[in-house]
Amino acid sequence: MSFDFHLTHTDGGARRGLMTTAHGVVETPAFMPVGTQGAVKGVTHSELDALGAEILLSNTYHLYLRPGDDLIARRGGLHRFIGWTKPILTDSGGYQVFSLSNRRTVDETGAHFRSHLDGSAHSLTPEKAADIQAQLGSDIAMVLDECLAHPATEEVARRSMERTLRWACRARDRFLALRDGLVPGVTVSNRGQAQFGIVQGSVFPRLREESARQTVEIGFEAYAIGGLSVGEPPDVMYDMVSRTTPGLPADRPRYLMGTGTPEDLVESVARGIDLFDCVLPTRNARNGQLFTSTGRINIKNARYAEDDRPIDLSCGCYTCRTCSRAYLRHLFQAGEINSSTLNTLHNLHFYLDTLRQIRDAIAFRRFESFRLAFHQSLSRHSHDS
Amino acid sequence: MSFDFHLTHTDGGARRGLMTTAHGVVETPAFMPVGTQGAVKGVTHSELDALGAEILLSNTYHLYLRPGDDLIARRGGLHRFIGWTKPILTDSGGYQVFSLSNRRTVDETGAHFRSHLDGSAHSLTPEKAADIQAQLGSDIAMVLDECLAHPATEEVARRSMERTLRWACRARDRFLALRDGLVPGVTVSNRGQAQFGIVQGSVFPRLREESARQTVEIGFEAYAIGGLSVGEPPDVMYDMVSRTTPGLPADRPRYLMGTGTPEDLVESVARGIDLFDCVLPTRNARNGQLFTSTGRINIKNARYAEDDRPIDLSCGCYTCRTCSRAYLRHLFQAGEINSSTLNTLHNLHFYLDTLRQIRDAIAFRRFESFRLAFHQSLSRHSHDS
Repeated sequence: MSFDFHLTHTDGGARRGLMTTAHGVVETPAFMPVGTQGAVKGVTHSELDALGAEILLSNTYHLYLRPGDDLIARRGGLHRFIGWTKPILTDSGGYQVFSLSNRRTVDETGAHFRSHLDGSAHSLTPEKAADIQAQLGSDIAMVLDECLAHPATEEVARRSMERTLRWACRARDRFLALRDGLVPGVTVSNRGQAQFGIVQGSVFPRLREESARQTVEIGFEAYAIGGLSVGEPPDVMYDMVSRTTPGLPADRPRYLMGTGTPEDLVESVARGIDLFDCVLPTRNARNGQLFTSTGRINIKNARYAEDDRPIDLSCGCYTCRTCSRAYLRHLFQAGEINSSTLNTLHNLHFYLDTLRQIRDAIAFRRFESFRLAFHQSLSRHSHDS
Repeated sequence: MSFDFHLTHTDGGARRGLMTTAHGVVETPAFMPVGTQGAVKGVTHSELDALGAEILLSNTYHLYLRPGDDLIARRGGLHRFIGWTKPILTDSGGYQVFSLSNRRTVDETGAHFRSHLDGSAHSLTPEKAADIQAQLGSDIAMVLDECLAHPATEEVARRSMERTLRWACRARDRFLALRDGLVPGVTVSNRGQAQFGIVQGSVFPRLREESARQTVEIGFEAYAIGGLSVGEPPDVMYDMVSRTTPGLPADRPRYLMGTGTPEDLVESVARGIDLFDCVLPTRNARNGQLFTSTGRINIKNARYAEDDRPIDLSCGCYTCRTCSRAYLRHLFQAGEINSSTLNTLHNLHFYLDTLRQIRDAIAFRRFESFRLAFHQSLSRHSHDS
């Protein structure tokens, strides 16, 4: 299968569709659990499958450093290496270079850094990011973009956005050369790989609009919005999404990178977003923070020590069917691995089920009433109730 | 249901049977995975169920200190607290007092120690160990025994064995009083709880024989052999088992505590043992050591970095069906939680499947040929091949 997308329903700005990749079809709007090192921390692929996850995100930076994209290519690519047969999206590695690596410098050629694991020196260029992802053989590869710190002045944001555009041209050229078998020494593990461009421009509407226009001109299988969820207020993020999606082709999926809270997902779907990824459900689970239809609770709180109720009375996940808050608090306090697993199963179920409800609401043209009820349920209850 | 046991097959010294407890029937010989704090580290109850585990062991010392047996009794007992509906055996807490606690002293009344968690002072007497287990409501409670360091002189071993006998009398009296509702302030969470006595006597055959005879005289639902697998050579352990089982009633299950390697299990079944528990499959899994039909491998070894084979070609577990050694090594190196989960699933499958094969072999009266083939398979291959 080659990459394809078609909308099946629209409801106001919200869209429901089917994204076809080399490893199968994804119903959108979709949430991608994050499997940084080729595994979603604490849950098996089988559990992810049962949760209804249709696509995973994996991190190029981590896999490049360990075990290495060469080793993974020799295994037949990332799908075969990790035993996940459904779609995978890989990021470009840029975000982790900017957030994790040591002694990082950036110039027009790319980013130069030292590994956070062993201090070894590496460079990540637009071409190199494309090469690594070709070897990993993900279904969707992302272009390398410059990750700007927030806040930035408009002038700094413009220069960075323009560099990202130049890098996007180079990334696309490399991607097409790889697809045509013109890059010796790089194994193309997945001939059906698609490449997404990334819109930047910080919190400046005209930069966002310009970035969208020019990224679309380069031409990718689809487009992402990057550089949000980096500390700006939610309303600013929603506004940037609103200002960007109109400039993106309606017949291509739109991916809002690294977002966000359940509220963010609902609000971004309302503005035309189709794809999400975020570490929030998985990372917070490991810290004991659980998402429910009436707000978040932190299971380590002493008030749950003798609470025989499930996390969320309206939740049908394995954890809520079999575990009380009292047991989950005990496992957290005792530092048991199972605490991470059970909490992650619940949070991922909450995210994936929210997306299921969103897709249903769009199909029945009642997304607005879903959206209203969703926010009301959250606001009626105080958090940690 | 009240506690019961009946043999269905014998083959030489090996026995196959059915042990009935208040929470269901266990096919013996059986291996009990260890769920120290009310959870088997890294695997969910659902996964344990799918692996075919029919009974769990949980640790009284840990649960007494955190979250506390009072709290668990208020939840309706350990089964309801942890959401495991099948049988549970609890140890007496003695072993952990002797191995984990601080500033421990032992006198005729019991063991006095400080918690390894917060330094608080506690005493564990034969009566207190029975009370805690009554509140936990396990299906099988163990008497408090004195855990002797190895090696010990025969004189020291005799004094300790005799103290264990006096403690066993007190433990049985308390158990019967609890059963009759004569101990105010203690909640009996499981009216069908059984109590096992423990044979001690270190590595001295006549002490073992004397301990067995006198423990049986006190009268318990069944009997365990304690104080082995503490550093003595395997042959000495096997010899002690051989010298003890003839003194135990044939119509009661026999439990060899804290043992052992797969070879130990096969050899002990040959000597008439019906029940086992051991942290080896679970703890070693977390350290990367995996059991196979041809010996042990350590998955962190660099030789597995590009090994696309499963852990064990003849294994049908989830891990072997879906993961290569290369991926498992990567997960171990990356410190992923999933490394513990996948390794534990495999090792527990290996143990539980070995017991299944043992039970089948006994039923078909071919245990001796199974035993021979089992040892040959291990000895034909070097470890870590």
